[in-house]
Order: sequence, then structure tokens, then C-alpha cells
Amino acid sequence: MSSVRSVLTIAGSDSSGGAGIQADLKTIAAHGCYGTSAMTALTSQNTTGVQAVHPIPPEFVEKQTLAEQIHSILDDIETHAIKTGMLYDADNVRAVVKALSAHYAGATIPPLVCDPVCVSTSGHSLLNPQAIQVLVDELFPLTHLITPNKPEAELLLSHRGMPSQISSLEDMTVAAKNLLRYGSKAVLLKGGHIVTTMEEVKMVSLKGTGIDVIPYGLLSENMEILQVGETNDPAARLVVDVLSEAGRTTLFIRPHIDSTSTHGTGCTLSAAIASQLARDGDLKEAVKNGVAYTHLGILTAQRIGKGHGPLNHLHALMPKLIPQATPTNRHPFTRMLIQGNAAAWKEYVEHEFVRLLGQGTLPRSAFVYFIIQDYHYLKYYARAYALLAAKSSTFDAIGSATQTIINVITEIHTHKAFCAAFGITNDMLENTPEEAATSAYGAYLIDIGLRGDTTKLLMALLACLLGYGEVGMWLKKQESLSNSWVVVEGNPYKQWMDDYSGPAYQGAVKIGLELIESRAAADPPSPARFAEWREVWERCTRLERGFWDAAMAAA
Amino acid sequence: MSSVRSVLTIAGSDSSGGAGIQADLKTIAAHGCYGTSAMTALTSQNTTGVQAVHPIPPEFVEKQTLAEQIHSILDDIETHAIKTGMLYDADNVRAVVKALSAHYAGATIPPLVCDPVCVSTSGHSLLNPQAIQVLVDELFPLTHLITPNKPEAELLLSHRGMPSQISSLEDMTVAAKNLLRYGSKAVLLKGGHIVTTMEEVKMVSLKGTGIDVIPYGLLSENMEILQVGETNDPAARLVVDVLSEAGRTTLFIRPHIDSTSTHGTGCTLSAAIASQLARDGDLKEAVKNGVAYTHLGILTAQRIGKGHGPLNHLHALMPKLIPQATPTNRHPFTRMLIQGNAAAWKEYVEHEFVRLLGQGTLPRSAFVYFIIQDYHYLKYYARAYALLAAKSSTFDAIGSATQTIINVITEIHTHKAFCAAFGITNDMLENTPEEAATSAYGAYLIDIGLRGDTTKLLMALLACLLGYGEVGMWLKKQESLSNSWVVVEGNPYKQWMDDYSGPAYQGAVKIGLELIESRAAADPPSPARFAEWREVWERCTRLERGFWDAAMAAA
Repeated sequence: MSSVRSVLTIAGSDSSGGAGIQADLKTIAAHGCYGTSAMTALTSQNTTGVQAVHPIPPEFVEKQTLAEQIHSILDDIETHAIKTGMLYDADNVRAVVKALSAHYAGATIPPLVCDPVCVSTSGHSLLNPQAIQVLVDELFPLTHLITPNKPEAELLLSHRGMPSQISSLEDMTVAAKNLLRYGSKAVLLKGGHIVTTMEEVKMVSLKGTGIDVIPYGLLSENMEILQVGETNDPAARLVVDVLSEAGRTTLFIRPHIDSTSTHGTGCTLSAAIASQLARDGDLKEAVKNGVAYTHLGILTAQRIGKGHGPLNHLHALMPKLIPQATPTNRHPFTRMLIQGNAAAWKEYVEHEFVRLLGQGTLPRSAFVYFIIQDYHYLKYYARAYALLAAKSSTFDAIGSATQTIINVITEIHTHKAFCAAFGITNDMLENTPEEAATSAYGAYLIDIGLRGDTTKLLMALLACLLGYGEVGMWLKKQESLSNSWVVVEGNPYKQWMDDYSGPAYQGAVKIGLELIESRAAADPPSPARFAEWREVWERCTRLERGFWDAAMAAA
Repeated sequence: MSSVRSVLTIAGSDSSGGAGIQADLKTIAAHGCYGTSAMTALTSQNTTGVQAVHPIPPEFVEKQTLAEQIHSILDDIETHAIKTGMLYDADNVRAVVKALSAHYAGATIPPLVCDPVCVSTSGHSLLNPQAIQVLVDELFPLTHLITPNKPEAELLLSHRGMPSQISSLEDMTVAAKNLLRYGSKAVLLKGGHIVTTMEEVKMVSLKGTGIDVIPYGLLSENMEILQVGETNDPAARLVVDVLSEAGRTTLFIRPHIDSTSTHGTGCTLSAAIASQLARDGDLKEAVKNGVAYTHLGILTAQRIGKGHGPLNHLHALMPKLIPQATPTNRHPFTRMLIQGNAAAWKEYVEHEFVRLLGQGTLPRSAFVYFIIQDYHYLKYYARAYALLAAKSSTFDAIGSATQTIINVITEIHTHKAFCAAFGITNDMLENTPEEAATSAYGAYLIDIGLRGDTTKLLMALLACLLGYGEVGMWLKKQESLSNSWVVVEGNPYKQWMDDYSGPAYQGAVKIGLELIESRAAADPPSPARFAEWREVWERCTRLERGFWDAAMAAA
């Protein structure tokens, strides 16, 4: 079962991408929904205005193109909300009503938001006069919400001979209530054309009954400190959208913005509300979020085009750096860490120390140096896991870190037996001074553990765990090749190779892999944080190489 | 100047949203670019197939709708890359050539990617036979890249009587080279119809000269540990796209995916490449990223519709929780912290202790309790800043944390003088036992400092800094109201009120505000991390209230 929510827009096409189905599809995508579109008319427009509107021509109507598009979508794709934008003429409105009524005969139509587009900002007529009657009589009764702006509301009110002049916030609340009689479940009268103040909002909300006020982007109580650099001037210009539902009115207030990036604002708002409704049925919440989304779209817009430019539809998204795990790529994060600096990783994994060890020709002195310094290093390593346990928040995490410490301590005993075979005594292990490469690496683990969070510490610890796992598996792979240079029989280091490629160690590698993958998936990093994680990983890669460089130098 | 990159798609409309300009606009948006579209034809289609294609009818051609759309966009919006999809007939192809040649007369056409769409996956013809000649002769010479699939390449090759049968990877490399003679700067022959293996890739790349191989989603060298749960079977089915440029060939290889979510794959790939080219001119990099984006789009798709469903176009995006700061909302993150639990914040800021203090009627015993416990608390607070300094990575951060410690120690001296006025001796300050509310709060700071990173510790420290700032400003605001209940004259706690609303403390508040805002902007949190930050903030809010509850209980 798909969890994707689908939203259908029935509207005109805006080639310049800022309004119409183009704006709708961008808005729907920005809400994580799947967008489909049925086109009512083509326009040639850009940010300077509408140059031409091309209605669907007669032979298209014969073929019922609009209805055909709608059926083609609804028959195939489960649709969770629908919005209508520019419908242009009465035939289109009828086609929409007919298609929806036919498809949902006897069933519930999903939330339907109707933006009764009549006139473009640049003054171009976008709805034929004859279409209004059909819109009101046939489409409105099917809708959950209509979203007229001031001129559209005035046009609709005068259509039924109702008082239509809207010039204040109070007029807006009355007009919204009157429009509610037209048959939609709710009316959102958009306030972009009327600038008001907090004083007027207070007056209207105190005077009326059942009026709620929902602010956005304004300082509310107990935010005195934010007045550093922000003002809360009671005379500041505000914009208010008025939502009228049976028995209650809600005012959505926000600061007025002086901006030319307003092309497609109405399309964007209705598409945002529809997308919200596709996820969750609560209308008030959907309008609140839709208004906030649109407001921020205007505020964060960059200038595009020469005239009234489009909103920024993508302000609420950011790049996801680590791809989702899939059956063919189960470790996307670890891949990125390794590929981030593949050369450094290779220099570590295929280090001369490792090659000579695999051949069995590694000077004994190099190995003795390494094994003694590794003893010192493992003390840091165990302590870093203790720090990880101390930093953890769940018994599972505390237990898992502690188990690793116990494993290291157990390993130390077999380590000592192994050392004895190389003539390394307990006294040598304890009393040979720690070398710089050892301190550098060990202290780095502790330092990262002090400075960062548990995930960052895990990056450092796992670079070590996974690196030795890789060395073990790489040697094993080389051994399996024909004419392998890896010597097994009589190799003094066979036990070491077996240990790191064996099931016990590789089991720990698998757990470690899954741990960092799940951490990165549960808390996807920002670019800055990802860079920090990568830096830790690469630093450890270099420190590991330095460790073996030192062993070779000591040979 | 806008830094937004614009991409124009010239293609058909797919009402079902998975292909055509709809897929292109989603893809362009997913790449952070601004999408515009010129429509060549309407289709009624869904995931089960194409039901109808409606070419732009005669009267539209008279009006030159397609050319009109293209001019309308290019004249207004600076365009950084262009792609063409389904052009359907010769008139459309000519219109594109004419419009681009006219607009860019004497100037360079931005990177132009031509997806020579001929036949839909479901078998519907999407390019009239007469159009091929115009496509090849007039459009190809303008393009940077053409992206045919196997049947399209075969059609194009046979059009000039060249050997056209493509049934192996080797055939593909030859065909791509031959197609390069058609006039485009490069050819990407898509391999979706031909399954191959790593052995074949190796054979072809060794045999040919100047052949590079770029893998995606495959295990490369030094990734042995990832074979836990992933296979690197040399006989595994691969898909290869072949890029032919003057003098070199690049093979983009990846695992074959068994999926029905492939509707609009070609549209998506060419739009992704165009979006990449709009940002950066390197073709090989653009193809590499475009191929990876499309591959992941198929892999992560959820089932939509009954037939061949669309790709997941949004897989590389995630929600950005904290809005960008704007002139009317300069502290978006702090607002979210406060509004996240406005009731708890209010209970803290407007605590009875604060109200009585403002009235001057707070029992002396409560204040004495508070001031002594605050002395103990400030020791934790200073230590937590020391921990912050220890965890910091820059001299700026170390210095700033250290300055705060020095400020606290200086404050302690004035604190003592202030205490003396209330009869609190040095001995009382040092030897009155620390109460549970004090330990709970103080030790929480240290605990968070141990467990998390510097940003998390800052959340805890700033909840305290900003909270007292808010208390100071709130009292000052109450004092300024008419009929204020705040008593200044003769209020024994006047000095305390003045301190927290005064410029020195409020200056520190301002710096703190800017610090967390800049941290959150530089490292936008995932939902999980944001939840952690909010939890720390709210916990501190409750601990602050608990501190004052204890003082009132002690009265």
C-alpha cells in the first residue's frame, strides 16, 4: 500500500511556471504529495502579465478533453484532495461538475477547494461572465472551501444582488458569511487587497461572536525579548484572511509584505490548502498552514522575471544528502563515507603493513611494535566506549556500549596469549612507552567523545571497527583469487588474519554497520553536520594509516 | 541578483503527473531550480497507458502558440538550460528551432538537452514520421546532448540508412558514436532496454579505447564489508547508459531494477541532466548525477496508479523545519521554541514569584531562599560554560564561553553586596545546603553538556539566559502599562528588576539569541534532532518554574 497522498489540480497552464497547474504542482510537491493535473486552458503569460489565453477549442470540447483528463486520472490514481483554479468558461465548469459527479456517484468527493479565479493580477479576464452562474449553482455545492479574493467576492456577491462593497475587515467578515450561503462548506475570503491593523483586528474580534484570531509571524505574549530587532507596532500594516464556517469565523493575521513576488499567490494558497487536506481533514489547521506556507513563499522569493515574479515554492525543503536504503544499496551512508575519500581509505586498507602481513613477510619487529602499541590503543578504545555508555540515553545503548568494553577486555586475554607466541611478555606490554601515533589516535577518540554527541563518537569508533573488518575481508578476498599473493600455510600472522575475517569480528562489523546506517536514517544530517561526520571518518582513516606507518618505520 | 537557475522544458503534458512537463517540473524543482514549460501537445494518459494525444490544433498553430509560449518565457526569465521532450509533429519541431534561433540570434544557446521521444512505453506513437527529418536536420545541431533509448536510436540510425540493430553493449557504443555524427555535441544512449553484466562491461571497456566506466550503486574496491547483505555477483544484471562525446565514451553502469515504477523515466532523466547543466557546465558530472537521481527515483517509488507508476521525484529532499529568517521574522527558531509549549513558557515567565516580586510583596523569606539557591546554581552554570569551552572547536567559541564564566564570577561579587542588603552573609551563601530543585536544574546542565554536542548544551544554557531576559522585559512591559500593578518606588526588589531588564543583561540576551539562530540556520536539524532540542528547552523551562515553586514553598 502506498502512503503517498495524491492531489489533483484542475486549472489553466501558466507557461512561465509561477501560477496555474505549474504553481500547483510545485506546491503539491513541496507538501510531499503526488500532483496530477487536468488542464482547462493554455495561457501565454509571464511575470509581466498575461499575453494570451487559449481556451480549449471546439474540437477538443467534442472530445471532452477536460472530462477525459479528469476521468483518466481519477480512474487510475486514488485522489485525496482536488483543487480547481482558472476554469475559464461555462463548458469547463460543467465538465468538472459532470466528471466529479460521475466518478464519485454515491461516494464522497474528497476535499475539494475551489479558487474562483476571475481576473488576473494584471487585469486579464480569466472567467467568462456566463460561467459564473454555473460555478455558483453547480460547482460550489460540491466544494469544501472556496477561496475568493476581494474582487472575486464582490463579483460573486453582486451576482446575487447582495451588498458587495468590501473595504474594511468588518466588511470582509460580513461578506464571507454571506458567501457561505452559496453552498460551499466554508469560505476563505483572502485579504491581500485590504490592509488593516491590530487595532482593527481587536475591534472586529471583540465585536463579533465566535471569532478566533490566529496570528502568524507576529510577536505574541511572552516574546518581549524578540523585540530586539523586531517591532510590535499596533499600527503596523497587517493582512487578514477570513475563514467563515457554519457558526464561526477565524481571522488569520500576518504582517503585510511589500513585494513584487506575488504572481500565483492565489493558486499557491489553494493548492497548499488542498495538499494539507489530503493529509489531514482539519480545515482550520490546513488554512493556517497554507497561509503560513504562502506568506513564507513570498517573503523568501528571489527575483525571477521582469515583472511580478513567482513565489519561492520550495522554501520548506532542503537537500537530503544520504539516499534512502534500498535492497540494492543497503548501506548508503557507509558507502558515502568510504567513497568520500576512496584514495585515503584504500591507502589504509591496502597498507604495505597489510600486504606484507598477508604475504607472511612482515618483519617481526614491525608486528611486535604494532601489537604492543595496539594494546595501549585498545585501552583508549575501551574508555571511549565507556564514554559512549555515559553519553547514552537508553538502556539498550548503555548495554551495547558496555558489551563492547567487555569484549575488548576478553580480547585482551587472547591478545596476551598471542603476544606470548611472539615473545612479548606482559611486562613488555605494560611498560613499553606509548608512541605518538598511538596517542594521537587514542586521544582523538576521547576528544571527539568529549566534544560531540554519541553519533559523532560512533563515527570515530566505527571507522576503526569497520576498517579492520575491511582489512580482514580484503585479505580474505586476495587469498581467494587465483595466483594469490596471500600466503596462508606457515604464515606467522595467520591467526591475526583469521580473527579479523572470522565470524565473531565480522558479526560485530555487521552490527556496527547497521547502527550507523540507522542513526543517519533517523537523524538525516544537514550539509554542515554531514561534513563534520565525514571529517571524523577521514581523520580516523589517516590516523589508522599513521599507526601502520609507525610500525613500518620501527621495523 | 537572483541566484535561482531556471530550466525550460518544451514537451507534452501528462495529466497523470508522471511524465511530460509535469515530471519535468517536479524534477527541476527537486534540483532546486525554477521550472518553466512550453507545451507541445496535450495527452490523456495515466499509468495504464496513453489514451489520447491532442496535438495543438490548426488555429493554435496560426497563433503560433508554442513559439509564443517559448518567447514569452525567454523574453522575461533568464534561462540556464532547456530540454525538449515530446515534440509530436514537424510544426512543433520547427517552432522550437525558430524560437530558439530567433531569441539567441548571435548569442549562445544555453545547454539544450533533446530527448527525442518517439514512442511511449505503452506503444503510443509520440512523434510523427515527417517530424524526424526536421528533428535531425534542424534541432540536433543546436543541442548539447540527445538522449535516445534503444528503439529511438534504431529509428534515428535507420533514418539515414546506418546499421541500426542494437542488441548488446558493444552495439550500443557503436550506435552512440554513429549518432554523434547527427550534429549534437554529445549522445547519451540509454540502456534500459538492454540488460548486461559486469563481464560484458569489462570486455567492452578493455576492447575500446578512451572508454571510462562510472559505476553507481555497485560495490567497488575496498567495500568488502558491505557484502554483508549485498552481493557483487559478476553475473548480476546491469543497466548501462552510454555517453559518446568527441573522442571518448563513458559507460554509466548500475544494477538493473525490476520495477513497474518507470513511467516518465526518460523525461525525468533528461530534465535532471538539464537541471544539473543549469548549475554547472560539466556534462559527464551532470549525466552521472542525473542517472543516479533517476535510478533512485525508481528504487524509492511507492506504487501509484494501476499500471506503470511514476518515479519518486522527491527522494533527495526532506522537510526544513525552521523557516529562513526574514526582516519580519528575525528569530524563527526561538519563536518555534517558545511557541512549541507557550503555556509552559508563560507559567515560567509570569510565575507567581515574578508577579509578587514586581508588586514588591514577595515574602522576604522566599527571596532569601531564591538568592541563596541561585548562588549554588550559578556555580553549575559557570561550570557548564567551562564544559562548553572544553567542547568548542574555535578560539572564538572558546573565548566567548570563557567570557561568560568571567561575567558570572564578576556578577557573584555584586550578588554578594546585594545579598548583604537582605541580611544574607557570606557564610549563609556558602553553607546553606543546596536544595533538590537547584541540584535538579544545575546537574541537568552538566548532564546535557556531557551527553550532547555544543548546540544541545547551548539550548539548555540559553533557555536560562533568555528566560531571565524575558522575565525582566515582561516586568518592564507591565510597568509601562496604564494602571500598572508593578511597583517601582520603594520596591525592595527594584535592583533585581533593573538588572535583568537593563542594557548589560539584555545585550547578553541579544548575543544569545543570535547565536542559537545562527546555529540552527547553519545546521538545520532533522525532525528527530529538532525534537531533542525542543525537549531540552522545555525541560529547562520546567526546571526554572520548579526553582521558583521551591522558593514560594519555602516562604
